[in-house]
Amino acid sequence: MKLLKTLAPAALLLAAPAMGLAQEAEPAAAAAPDINPYIFTTLLFLVGGFLVFWMAAGFAMLEAGLVRSKNVTMQLTKNISLFSIAAIMYWLVGFNLMYPGDGWIIQGYLGILISPTSLEPVGLAADAAALDYASVGSDFFFQLMFCATTASIVSGTLAERIKLWPFLIFVVVLTGFIYPIEASWQWGGGWLSEAGFSDFAGSTLVHAAGGWAALAGALILGPRIGKYKDGRTVPMPGSNLALATLGTFILWLGWFGFNGGSQLAMGTVGDVTDVSRIFANTNMAAAAGAVAALILTSVMYGKADLTMVLNGALAGLVSITAEPLAPSLFMALVTGAIGGGIVVVTVPMLDKLKIDDVVGAIPVHLIAGIWGTLAVAFYTGNWGAQILGIVAIGIFTFVVSAVVWFILKATMGIRVGEEEEINGLDMAELGMEAYPEFSKG
Amino acid sequence: MKLLKTLAPAALLLAAPAMGLAQEAEPAAAAAPDINPYIFTTLLFLVGGFLVFWMAAGFAMLEAGLVRSKNVTMQLTKNISLFSIAAIMYWLVGFNLMYPGDGWIIQGYLGILISPTSLEPVGLAADAAALDYASVGSDFFFQLMFCATTASIVSGTLAERIKLWPFLIFVVVLTGFIYPIEASWQWGGGWLSEAGFSDFAGSTLVHAAGGWAALAGALILGPRIGKYKDGRTVPMPGSNLALATLGTFILWLGWFGFNGGSQLAMGTVGDVTDVSRIFANTNMAAAAGAVAALILTSVMYGKADLTMVLNGALAGLVSITAEPLAPSLFMALVTGAIGGGIVVVTVPMLDKLKIDDVVGAIPVHLIAGIWGTLAVAFYTGNWGAQILGIVAIGIFTFVVSAVVWFILKATMGIRVGEEEEINGLDMAELGMEAYPEFSKG
Amino acid sequence: MKLLKTLAPAALLLAAPAMGLAQEAEPAAAAAPDINPYIFTTLLFLVGGFLVFWMAAGFAMLEAGLVRSKNVTMQLTKNISLFSIAAIMYWLVGFNLMYPGDGWIIQGYLGILISPTSLEPVGLAADAAALDYASVGSDFFFQLMFCATTASIVSGTLAERIKLWPFLIFVVVLTGFIYPIEASWQWGGGWLSEAGFSDFAGSTLVHAAGGWAALAGALILGPRIGKYKDGRTVPMPGSNLALATLGTFILWLGWFGFNGGSQLAMGTVGDVTDVSRIFANTNMAAAAGAVAALILTSVMYGKADLTMVLNGALAGLVSITAEPLAPSLFMALVTGAIGGGIVVVTVPMLDKLKIDDVVGAIPVHLIAGIWGTLAVAFYTGNWGAQILGIVAIGIFTFVVSAVVWFILKATMGIRVGEEEEINGLDMAELGMEAYPEFSKG
Repeated sequence: MKLLKTLAPAALLLAAPAMGLAQEAEPAAAAAPDINPYIFTTLLFLVGGFLVFWMAAGFAMLEAGLVRSKNVTMQLTKNISLFSIAAIMYWLVGFNLMYPGDGWIIQGYLGILISPTSLEPVGLAADAAALDYASVGSDFFFQLMFCATTASIVSGTLAERIKLWPFLIFVVVLTGFIYPIEASWQWGGGWLSEAGFSDFAGSTLVHAAGGWAALAGALILGPRIGKYKDGRTVPMPGSNLALATLGTFILWLGWFGFNGGSQLAMGTVGDVTDVSRIFANTNMAAAAGAVAALILTSVMYGKADLTMVLNGALAGLVSITAEPLAPSLFMALVTGAIGGGIVVVTVPMLDKLKIDDVVGAIPVHLIAGIWGTLAVAFYTGNWGAQILGIVAIGIFTFVVSAVVWFILKATMGIRVGEEEEINGLDMAELGMEAYPEFSKG
Repeated sequence: MKLLKTLAPAALLLAAPAMGLAQEAEPAAAAAPDINPYIFTTLLFLVGGFLVFWMAAGFAMLEAGLVRSKNVTMQLTKNISLFSIAAIMYWLVGFNLMYPGDGWIIQGYLGILISPTSLEPVGLAADAAALDYASVGSDFFFQLMFCATTASIVSGTLAERIKLWPFLIFVVVLTGFIYPIEASWQWGGGWLSEAGFSDFAGSTLVHAAGGWAALAGALILGPRIGKYKDGRTVPMPGSNLALATLGTFILWLGWFGFNGGSQLAMGTVGDVTDVSRIFANTNMAAAAGAVAALILTSVMYGKADLTMVLNGALAGLVSITAEPLAPSLFMALVTGAIGGGIVVVTVPMLDKLKIDDVVGAIPVHLIAGIWGTLAVAFYTGNWGAQILGIVAIGIFTFVVSAVVWFILKATMGIRVGEEEEINGLDMAELGMEAYPEFSKG
Repeated sequence: MKLLKTLAPAALLLAAPAMGLAQEAEPAAAAAPDINPYIFTTLLFLVGGFLVFWMAAGFAMLEAGLVRSKNVTMQLTKNISLFSIAAIMYWLVGFNLMYPGDGWIIQGYLGILISPTSLEPVGLAADAAALDYASVGSDFFFQLMFCATTASIVSGTLAERIKLWPFLIFVVVLTGFIYPIEASWQWGGGWLSEAGFSDFAGSTLVHAAGGWAALAGALILGPRIGKYKDGRTVPMPGSNLALATLGTFILWLGWFGFNGGSQLAMGTVGDVTDVSRIFANTNMAAAAGAVAALILTSVMYGKADLTMVLNGALAGLVSITAEPLAPSLFMALVTGAIGGGIVVVTVPMLDKLKIDDVVGAIPVHLIAGIWGTLAVAFYTGNWGAQILGIVAIGIFTFVVSAVVWFILKATMGIRVGEEEEINGLDMAELGMEAYPEFSKG
């Protein structure tokens, strides 16, 4: 491919009758005079995709900063592993499950999947291989990142007590099956999209879904030893707030790709204008969430709380994700600020329920995700469809996740021993400290 | 150069009454056969904008790494809060103040500002809503990041002793009023641009302006306790040089968006070629600033000084920002190297004057910013205009900032108590340590 | 692959004598009706270039995290300095050496090099100044980053015992001469490309070359004091695994630019589709390398090893770099997984040979680089050419590097004194600790 291109650039392109030899089947649009929309939209997926990839680093830093230092190596290991597993499972199963072509289960599937030089860029069955508006490879790359994000949400909640391998097996099921199935209901053209449900970039499909899976895990796993004692909540402060802040900035940056890329088109003046509006709204919601949490914690507790400000920004981002295009900047501010407020209010509520969510992922992703999805009805007017989607995705993700967690608990166990938990997972499970030279205070 | 582009749209809108149905009014260019310049330039603003956004993380990491560990949480809180406040204030006031349409103070302003589904993407008055060369949303997104950068500069200088809320109130004034007003003199088509002043991406408008605001604050706030003792300067080394280096790399990366995006156009061969030249020059100036500081500190003190190398790279970047397009790579090298040298020489000078600038922001942003702005006259020949701009922006920003700092000092006080300062702002003001488990050496 | 594109411009320039007035000579393509390919490809170089720039930060964080805290400041100083030196040397010598025009050593070279407002954007001789498919400035910017990457590889291996200045002088030679010469054999249209050797983005030209230079240095420098004692290897764990993980994520992100940008074209449907395929394959190989190392270390040692997982991901990336376009996703998985396995197996082998590679750069970049380059023959069938390239680049880089290291050792010495090494390079050579407040455990 590269060879042909390099050997005779302009002449080949001008003559061009043999372009069917290209690695990916040329979509019909290529024959039209203006092929730029295809290039622009593919570029949107690539840039959006690498920005959302970067969110994996954001989750890793945020969670590594919010756990105690004795569990940092484990949290890092879980994060890089879960992303890698998601990348494989979404290719092996998820993408085809989410966007089914006519015949992905046909006999050709496995053959194409493992063909060493398959013309299909992503191991898809032939029927699903070509899009007319962008490259399949870029679409796969972009969609994969959303699948991985869903898994990243879970790891933070369950930190500091879950074993490595049961967690990773859950990730296999989540990224290969649970996420692709529920997401296909909407983005794969399934029954929810037909019912009028609207979730632009995944407040429910990605964030609340991850939050439900985390909640199921937290309930079955139980809180950390010593977290709830004599009716009060014992603070277990994160070991490195600079890392946690870095992680938040990374997530904020990546979210421009998450929401902006979800426009799924950039090749016309209207589309690129919409992408711009999404960028501006996304930024505004994050800022409003941070400021809301800053003001609220200062008023409620007399002191600003950095971890709340960080989670406030993230909740603002989750809130605007279901509809980042329709709102004016003022409404983006309102939406994000309510998201930030939700975090400040619900973090202590979860503690009262003795649900131990180490990094606050449930308030940020699940509760703010529900808020953001509901808020879409201000623009569509269809409250019923929004509630239907929230409930359907919630029940499915929570129940299936709970079943998987139960099976894992019953078979291999999901929680480390008491001594291991107290000494920290790093030494007990990995034999490796994250900061071996810094003595504990 | 923004001038003409900004004034055109009103006429276009009159000629296109039927465009109100689109999310954003379609500019007249959409009717022309080649609409790609609009898409490319909008894309430049989006990519440039997220890169400059990323600089907010760079400032946060740089400053968190250069303060002592007892003040890290506070520095992080200030940085994420100042960005969030800038995002809101620049929308609420700044953008319209900087690029005034005919009637932004008309009765419609507030109505549009708070409309839930306003057709205007950024809450602007109708007259200023559409551009013919790029999406307004992308322009707003990009320009906002420059406003936030100005505020980021201030937080480093004043670290380790200023109270949270007075600082944030100053940020409200700086990002809502001071920056937009002085920047409008040049980029809003104001009197400085008419006088022939030239500042491509903001060596003076952003960096020196931030530096002047910081200098005013530093003089009124006074140095940290114990910094200047018996005629000598007591070193107070930063707590985490890995973070500081990360912050510098982040800023360097973001600067490609800062300078490259300031070309304000990417839709023609000439424009994208210019953007490329800007990228190459920006990188060269940073490299030259770092190497200059590396060599100078090695020669002057016998030992290379990492913090000087970091600030040298940043000073190289600030120096090239006023004119990153005209110079050859050789002149970019010279410009950046002089910037790096300036830092090495002026950091101790500030200490002799007992001006306590915790992270070196005044040498990097103010003094190298002046150097870079002056150097533009090598290409334009107009020394008078450059000096006029430097002096005018300097006087305005410094005086207004000083007045605001004085008022804040007189009303609510700007400095923490002596005991709070010695114990660190983290525990005293926030009740939260950044590294609670790492004992102090 | 760069061959014809590089040789074409001279003819174009002859056909277009009047183009000297533009900032950069307008290529003939600008006169053609469809100028978009030029813009898109330039944009690819700019985005790809800033992503590869970001890898410099990745190496800095990875290495700073994997050395002991007493050497962190030094490792950071080396990393930012080596990048800056590479930026200058590649401009001064390397770029012209790698892509020679007819007359770069002619009398005009120096004049153009130091002209303050040269029309040539990158100080090149006139004959080599214009490309027809992208801006020279963007090409220079992109290619420069590959040169810098080669140097980054060396710094990790030699950490914790090499003196600052001899290392930086080696970087001068490596980035100004060694890398440009060997890379020109292939990418400059030299004899290796004519012999049928294939190395898409530089598994051998960049990664193995850096690895060979590092190996030569490691052999001449010797292992750290106390590393090999009484026949066993003493573990010297890295001081900050969160930083090391961050560095790996940064490198992974940057690699999309490294491999994707090496398509060298994005202006047609076919090219952008290829870039997409490269993104997807690059991500898959990294994920597979990480998972392979995760599983292998768990099976072999009973415990997952985070540093192996990080290096596994990087080895997967290096492995796919020689051919990221031809493989299906399944083959990308296989290629990357073998790369990850190589790291797990060869890290202890190096220790048995008492070759002290502090961060594992030789297994990751040299050995996985050889594997990746060999694997190209599965697609081209030309095993001989692949082996020829691997051997030729290996011998040249290793021998010349060894000579340089020997000269440096004989003249100024390359190793710090015993006491300095034990106390750490930070205090001994720089007088500055990276974490001055965190007491050692």
